[in-house]
Amino acid sequence: MPRTLSILGATGSIGVQTLDVVMANPDEFRLGWLTVNTRFDLLEEHLGRLQKHGFTPQGVVIADESAYNEFRRITSFKGKILCGDEGVCEAAAAPENDILLSALVGFSGVLPNYAAIQQGTPIALANKETLVSAGAVIMPAARERGVEILAVDSEHSAILQCLAGEYLEEVEKLILTASGGPFREWTIEQLENVTPAQALKHPNWSMGNKITIDSATLMNKGFEVIEAYWLFGVGAEKIEVVVHPQSIIHSMVQFCDGSVKAQLGLPDMKIPISYALSLPHRYPSNFKRMDICALQNLSFFPPDMVRFPCLRLAFDSLAQGGTAACIVNAANEIAVASFLQGTIGFLDIPRLIETCLEKITHIDTPTLDDIVQTDKKTRALAESLVKQGMSVPAVLMPKVNGAATNPNLVSS
Amino acid sequence: MPRTLSILGATGSIGVQTLDVVMANPDEFRLGWLTVNTRFDLLEEHLGRLQKHGFTPQGVVIADESAYNEFRRITSFKGKILCGDEGVCEAAAAPENDILLSALVGFSGVLPNYAAIQQGTPIALANKETLVSAGAVIMPAARERGVEILAVDSEHSAILQCLAGEYLEEVEKLILTASGGPFREWTIEQLENVTPAQALKHPNWSMGNKITIDSATLMNKGFEVIEAYWLFGVGAEKIEVVVHPQSIIHSMVQFCDGSVKAQLGLPDMKIPISYALSLPHRYPSNFKRMDICALQNLSFFPPDMVRFPCLRLAFDSLAQGGTAACIVNAANEIAVASFLQGTIGFLDIPRLIETCLEKITHIDTPTLDDIVQTDKKTRALAESLVKQGMSVPAVLMPKVNGAATNPNLVSS
Repeated sequence: MPRTLSILGATGSIGVQTLDVVMANPDEFRLGWLTVNTRFDLLEEHLGRLQKHGFTPQGVVIADESAYNEFRRITSFKGKILCGDEGVCEAAAAPENDILLSALVGFSGVLPNYAAIQQGTPIALANKETLVSAGAVIMPAARERGVEILAVDSEHSAILQCLAGEYLEEVEKLILTASGGPFREWTIEQLENVTPAQALKHPNWSMGNKITIDSATLMNKGFEVIEAYWLFGVGAEKIEVVVHPQSIIHSMVQFCDGSVKAQLGLPDMKIPISYALSLPHRYPSNFKRMDICALQNLSFFPPDMVRFPCLRLAFDSLAQGGTAACIVNAANEIAVASFLQGTIGFLDIPRLIETCLEKITHIDTPTLDDIVQTDKKTRALAESLVKQGMSVPAVLMPKVNGAATNPNLVSS
Repeated sequence: MPRTLSILGATGSIGVQTLDVVMANPDEFRLGWLTVNTRFDLLEEHLGRLQKHGFTPQGVVIADESAYNEFRRITSFKGKILCGDEGVCEAAAAPENDILLSALVGFSGVLPNYAAIQQGTPIALANKETLVSAGAVIMPAARERGVEILAVDSEHSAILQCLAGEYLEEVEKLILTASGGPFREWTIEQLENVTPAQALKHPNWSMGNKITIDSATLMNKGFEVIEAYWLFGVGAEKIEVVVHPQSIIHSMVQFCDGSVKAQLGLPDMKIPISYALSLPHRYPSNFKRMDICALQNLSFFPPDMVRFPCLRLAFDSLAQGGTAACIVNAANEIAVASFLQGTIGFLDIPRLIETCLEKITHIDTPTLDDIVQTDKKTRALAESLVKQGMSVPAVLMPKVNGAATNPNLVSS
């Protein structure tokens, strides 16, 4: 029996690869809703491609209003067409959904994912910021409704695959591997001067801009630690990060008998997407196979939290609990956007986050509304810090050994 | 509820480590029978050690008659004491056994394992030659009685662990890793002159003599291919061998979606022994943990079947089916014993096997008795070939590029 799948973020990297998985398994799926933010032109293109494969979604949502208007002008799509964040939430909570692939970017995923949980729909989650910001609210809600949250991130999918047939209480350690990003071997001095173009070149994975920068700062790995904490319900002390530059082993699990299981493969997100949709089974695929004998010099290193303070901040926020990780996430979203616009430097990203963590009031046991408000306040503070810095760029980007210090940004 | 465990081959490397696992998990086990071949002194020692941990087996068997007599003279053991191969079979088939750890060496395991299956007792199997020689009889008998045969070999345990929670029909490939043995980089010319002392030094694993020589010739890996074929019921074309000199990844499974799972760890047989006894659960252990960041330069190579013809012979015999692998195993047992006695050379091992494969009558669908007879005939032929060669050592060990050819041994 085909299941009705809706995709939040259908034109992003994960969304498009999910459509590939759907088209490769036509008997498994019907399409419910596809949502996009602004890329109405790409949506129209994908609708055409889907139609050729016999797929017509029930409806689409274009969150951005002007993009929505443009889409209505150009499209030949005959289904429902909604607009705005409410439209995205409506698609997420559509009662006909059997499963939701959630690939929104950043905090924007929180409310739609929460809406899906209220509806009782299992979520294949590619939007880690939802758990980073709101895990304390999302996971209890999911447990209460018996809603499964399935990992799509390659690391968490690796862990999920290694946990198949195992008992969570027999897990000794989750070992998240990190490529270490493009700047793995750079000095702090070199990191000060990283340009957006340099940071956007990830050595192993081709991904969206936000996550690529997060990978370069290791914030992405920090978020994955927090995500693993919520997804698998193990203590933070059982989660470890290890740098593995070849990105072949996607993550590992160590059990109480000393045995370690790993999942490995080429860096192809279609495998974890496919697994989240097929588990406990697996769909046959023609994805390129790994040539084991081409694997040479696989290596592993401890991460450097001095040169990559974002990873430390993530661990700290997890230890702190409550809204701490929400603050880290919100500050990071502003910091990354500012870095991509060229208004702050690469190492200003952790500085901005740390400053926000110190200045925003912390709530130990937040409600969903507390989280939404904390996110808003943090963004406002981060934006104003960036603006203040922008007028004094020499101060905003103090050299590590230099005398200049921005009073608004505490150096780690 | 503790289960009654009996151990065939209790003083061998696997047997002793099994006793360690038992003593570390005193609430899980009662001891049924312990069998040994000749090492009555070691048996007495272990009985003392076990007693201090509150374990007294129900009975013991000493297969060798003079060792049995010696044991009776020195022991203070109050339980039943049996002798001979019949005694071993009686212990294997004891109705009180809840599980049998079968760690006999070579063909000697076939009849006791068969007896346990007839009794309906699950077997944790460390004696791969049983499946190599008699898989065609053993596995249908086990299936018919619903008896589980659980892998203890580190490679097959790795596969078993990777298959937990998965579906056999979604397996694309079983990838057995091989250390490559101590002679991985030796030329054929060098291999002609390998001494027993050199071959007994395995780079990664400390094991019994027979299996250490089998590892050096890659016959062990060949047997593991055949064992995997019988244990997991996948086609021979789905089983692959890859040389991995570090022996960290113990084996892998590739699934139909392109995903690969691996089990890894330090080379410690206690982990696979423990898993075979605990699965689907895992016993907590204090076995030394692997330091992931100490892993560097993990590498993988295709095996060389020209320098290591034993591996090719195993694949060939699997393709041939019937009694072919039984012939290979019997010839190999004689060849290894002769090599260890210094009466034939290292590369005479595959030559002797190949000659036996050509000269012994093949039976396509053998009975257990056919297998026992084929084993006997092959041993007799192999022994006579070795004896003929012993009188003309220059001929028995022809140099690869030399003119001498032993008419009794076909070079591969």
